[in-house]
Amino acid sequence: MTRLLHDIAHLGHAELLTPEPEKSLWFFAEVLGLTENGTSGDSVYLRTWDDYEHHSLKLTASATSGIGRTGLRAASEQALKRRVAEIERHGLGAGWQGGDLGIGLTYLFRDPDGHEFELYWETEWYQPTGELTPALKNQAQAYPGRGVSVRRLDHVNFLAAQSEPNGRFICSSLGGRVTEQIVLDDGTVSAQWTHFAQKTYDLVYMNDWTGRYGRLHHIAFATDTREDVLRAADICLDRQVFIETGPHKRAIQQTFFLYVYKPGGNRIELCNPCARLIFAPDWETITWSEAERAKGQAWGLKTIASFHTHGTPPAQ
Amino acid sequence: MTRLLHDIAHLGHAELLTPEPEKSLWFFAEVLGLTENGTSGDSVYLRTWDDYEHHSLKLTASATSGIGRTGLRAASEQALKRRVAEIERHGLGAGWQGGDLGIGLTYLFRDPDGHEFELYWETEWYQPTGELTPALKNQAQAYPGRGVSVRRLDHVNFLAAQSEPNGRFICSSLGGRVTEQIVLDDGTVSAQWTHFAQKTYDLVYMNDWTGRYGRLHHIAFATDTREDVLRAADICLDRQVFIETGPHKRAIQQTFFLYVYKPGGNRIELCNPCARLIFAPDWETITWSEAERAKGQAWGLKTIASFHTHGTPPAQ
Amino acid sequence: MTRLLHDIAHLGHAELLTPEPEKSLWFFAEVLGLTENGTSGDSVYLRTWDDYEHHSLKLTASATSGIGRTGLRAASEQALKRRVAEIERHGLGAGWQGGDLGIGLTYLFRDPDGHEFELYWETEWYQPTGELTPALKNQAQAYPGRGVSVRRLDHVNFLAAQSEPNGRFICSSLGGRVTEQIVLDDGTVSAQWTHFAQKTYDLVYMNDWTGRYGRLHHIAFATDTREDVLRAADICLDRQVFIETGPHKRAIQQTFFLYVYKPGGNRIELCNPCARLIFAPDWETITWSEAERAKGQAWGLKTIASFHTHGTPPAQ
Amino acid sequence: MTRLLHDIAHLGHAELLTPEPEKSLWFFAEVLGLTENGTSGDSVYLRTWDDYEHHSLKLTASATSGIGRTGLRAASEQALKRRVAEIERHGLGAGWQGGDLGIGLTYLFRDPDGHEFELYWETEWYQPTGELTPALKNQAQAYPGRGVSVRRLDHVNFLAAQSEPNGRFICSSLGGRVTEQIVLDDGTVSAQWTHFAQKTYDLVYMNDWTGRYGRLHHIAFATDTREDVLRAADICLDRQVFIETGPHKRAIQQTFFLYVYKPGGNRIELCNPCARLIFAPDWETITWSEAERAKGQAWGLKTIASFHTHGTPPAQ
Repeated sequence: MTRLLHDIAHLGHAELLTPEPEKSLWFFAEVLGLTENGTSGDSVYLRTWDDYEHHSLKLTASATSGIGRTGLRAASEQALKRRVAEIERHGLGAGWQGGDLGIGLTYLFRDPDGHEFELYWETEWYQPTGELTPALKNQAQAYPGRGVSVRRLDHVNFLAAQSEPNGRFICSSLGGRVTEQIVLDDGTVSAQWTHFAQKTYDLVYMNDWTGRYGRLHHIAFATDTREDVLRAADICLDRQVFIETGPHKRAIQQTFFLYVYKPGGNRIELCNPCARLIFAPDWETITWSEAERAKGQAWGLKTIASFHTHGTPPAQ
Repeated sequence: MTRLLHDIAHLGHAELLTPEPEKSLWFFAEVLGLTENGTSGDSVYLRTWDDYEHHSLKLTASATSGIGRTGLRAASEQALKRRVAEIERHGLGAGWQGGDLGIGLTYLFRDPDGHEFELYWETEWYQPTGELTPALKNQAQAYPGRGVSVRRLDHVNFLAAQSEPNGRFICSSLGGRVTEQIVLDDGTVSAQWTHFAQKTYDLVYMNDWTGRYGRLHHIAFATDTREDVLRAADICLDRQVFIETGPHKRAIQQTFFLYVYKPGGNRIELCNPCARLIFAPDWETITWSEAERAKGQAWGLKTIASFHTHGTPPAQ
Repeated sequence: MTRLLHDIAHLGHAELLTPEPEKSLWFFAEVLGLTENGTSGDSVYLRTWDDYEHHSLKLTASATSGIGRTGLRAASEQALKRRVAEIERHGLGAGWQGGDLGIGLTYLFRDPDGHEFELYWETEWYQPTGELTPALKNQAQAYPGRGVSVRRLDHVNFLAAQSEPNGRFICSSLGGRVTEQIVLDDGTVSAQWTHFAQKTYDLVYMNDWTGRYGRLHHIAFATDTREDVLRAADICLDRQVFIETGPHKRAIQQTFFLYVYKPGGNRIELCNPCARLIFAPDWETITWSEAERAKGQAWGLKTIASFHTHGTPPAQ
Repeated sequence: MTRLLHDIAHLGHAELLTPEPEKSLWFFAEVLGLTENGTSGDSVYLRTWDDYEHHSLKLTASATSGIGRTGLRAASEQALKRRVAEIERHGLGAGWQGGDLGIGLTYLFRDPDGHEFELYWETEWYQPTGELTPALKNQAQAYPGRGVSVRRLDHVNFLAAQSEPNGRFICSSLGGRVTEQIVLDDGTVSAQWTHFAQKTYDLVYMNDWTGRYGRLHHIAFATDTREDVLRAADICLDRQVFIETGPHKRAIQQTFFLYVYKPGGNRIELCNPCARLIFAPDWETITWSEAERAKGQAWGLKTIASFHTHGTPPAQ
């Protein structure tokens, strides 16, 4: 068992690159129900209604699709320093930088596969105004009631040339833990799900079938209920958003999921965990074999072929 | 048992009067998710996404609140003629008229309490265009994904000086049936729920505590799921729509309900019946006593006092 | 448009044949949550909690699987006589018989494909006792809270050498209507969904790929919510009931479905329609083409191959 | 802000005292769907299906109702020692003891109000056998499909002569944090909700209107969905389990709740948090005023009077 350090509080935000910025903005604002909260250069910042920080998503116009920088919030200023020291010990640090909208000093680094991250402590608590003000004071923002109305950015699922060194980095440098993984018959670790606290996963690595580095499998937004995921499928259907697979329940992590492609190509998951959390401090990594994975998802849906052929940016 | 004639196919639409037309339009379009479909004089027409006809609701600016004309669609042209003959035999007919947006020749009449109705056969099937076009050809309109996104106008609940003569009229003249009712200890029938086919109720009469005629208790829109009703409560809360009571499950008819007041004062119910329908052709009216009603709703919620003090237009 | 006669009130019950009577009884009682209500010869009678009659299902030990007799309740004694006359005019009647547990005089007949039916008016209203007594007087039986706890027998889906003559028979002899159908590019009607009132389908015919007569595709039980269907998948998974496909939403009829095989081989559907009903008295049959069907189910799930290879009794 | 120490991993189990042991066992096993897992002396041990440990609940026959010992699992052996040292520094320790079924060496202590606790590291991971074996290897036990089928013991809500010293003890000795609280106009802290990680609360203190010590307001079990809570209300209704209030959504913590009394008098909550978690490491305690509390629950339900008169054991 890996000891959870709790130095990383949570996934803060992700940056998506898109060659179709206008349609992507429509997708996040109108289909998923995020709220715009500022722009800067080629980027638009968007937030989910349950996000206490400035934004959950930075959408950046780009020549191609893929993931930009992933933000993690440290549990304290001391925790931030401890993690920076550890990252530098691994030689993966890229130095301090002046932050971004809503975020103070931030430390840049890359995982072994080259995905860009930032780690920060200073953050601006979101202050809603006008019709964005919620009725209940323990809620960050009024419920939008627009499209899927996702609650939060839930996890980032990276592609990596090799998953295992990245999962190991998340554990050793950031204090995370591998809750579930897939190990092929030849011993290859083909995917690892890692978490930082009670959520059962926050960052996921899957082996990239192309052998390339730094690509994205998907980012996921959580809804409050499974009914929200079912309704999301209706909404995507009527708005001609491509549905890749689902809704169904994953065997791994038991997440209720729907996968769609946003305009410009990135895969987006709408997910709901029911009340599932991991409480055991001595949780042993669950390992799934090839034979077990061949059974498909929890209720028998076969894993869709494009799950192993579609990543962003596209392989050439 | 009363024999169902099936000459009335279904509740078609209702007209609401409102002293606050702009805010009311906001409520129906943005909070409930109806779609505007035409205007005429002081009226705006709105439709739910599952309505195959032109509109579900006619919203008419008026000096006061309350219900205008309720539309019922006949099951055939012959059925229409049979019902008109019967209404005229009761002396409650008001004659034929040229119809309204989306509706052909229509026969006007009043129930014994004076509420205005129209009965019609000719109707215009809704033809969606553009982004209102649904992906599935067996659906009237694309799912709006805006606010509560109610599915259909479900029922109209009238106040009447005396319920029983009105329920009797629905049965004898229109071929309906009383599925449930409340009978007080002194023998007074204080409320009757009537239906025309498998839905368990379509038109309801409750005794008006003021003794006035022609008033409204509420109109109701059905959602697809109970989760939609729960979410409706969140949406109404954040948009400062007054929630009167619920969500909860009624003992009578077992409907899952939420009651709110729209701007201008009319009470609106959001309801979901789960999969409940009445199939028995020889269904015997269920009668609830005062003692049974005193137990409150299905799971114990006490019936709210304003249920017996708030009707529209307000009593002076 | 076919005129609905409303002479058939509803699907009453179905008889399933099973070579594994004990395991089948376990499946219906413990997994689906039906309640046993009598036995006779090789048959066990079971009821859903919302059934006002004696039973919803007659489970009969047999050398092979398949469907036995399907029961339809007439809307009145006169309606029964009218339908019998019409069936006899088609030469498909088999005469009156003394009934069955809970059912009085019943008229036996076969559809053109040879499936056995009974039509009856006299029925015994179920009287719950002890812990089967519900708290609410407008409910037939206490909610079981055991396994899936299905609400009602929803529909029977027959296989037939040719669907269309059977669908036509349901319309012309029984007063039903085809609400949706599939027509192949060569003009073959390959499936028809028929209904008797506001439920969107009650009896379905699909072409049997083996060309045999009298076989069954599946019978379906309705749940109150889609969440109940999702939970049913968990329950079937843990109890090793074979899940064929789903949960997902059908394009045709938009039903939320889960298909499983009960012990002994018959396919059983758990279904939920949300609040969908057909109200239009002049509903025009929706016709789906081969190209449209090739798109799969509503949210994109491909129709499973075994849907076109598994029927009961098995073809030899 | 209080720094979360993460030395307490989670609430492990609770012991309920009951003067009606047989009916209480029926309630937990048949109505809530827990699974018996051993007996010892006057106690029966029961577990929820998502519990990785031996049991979630110890049900002990007693002359009166109330709460016995509450078990907390430490995050590691070192964490256990650190917390014991801190508890002893507060003078509230009661020493080490040999454990209980499924639990190793355990440290006994009391909160300032006198409620008994145990803190432990050694625990026996549950090994399901036979039909209790789940289909998915990342699940502790097969889903029972019996009654409400609650997922986990969620929180314990104590009554205390004064809440605040107890909440302070949870923070200072156990490393928890107050996420929300009620402060009366005169400055009295009347209730505090405390948590140990991402769940928004684990242990709650409310002021006891009787001024007595060591009493219980309720213990709560979490369900996977809000639909499960709605269904729980149906199940309790039909099985004559007293429903005190709900289902509804709390303003504080936004929990969807149902409160019932189990046989023998203890209040039990069925709760669902949707996807709500607290991620912010610098979460500031939300304080609710008397005026805010007077608004009732989230959607307007008035807090039921018995919430302030019913605790266990009963006050004499």
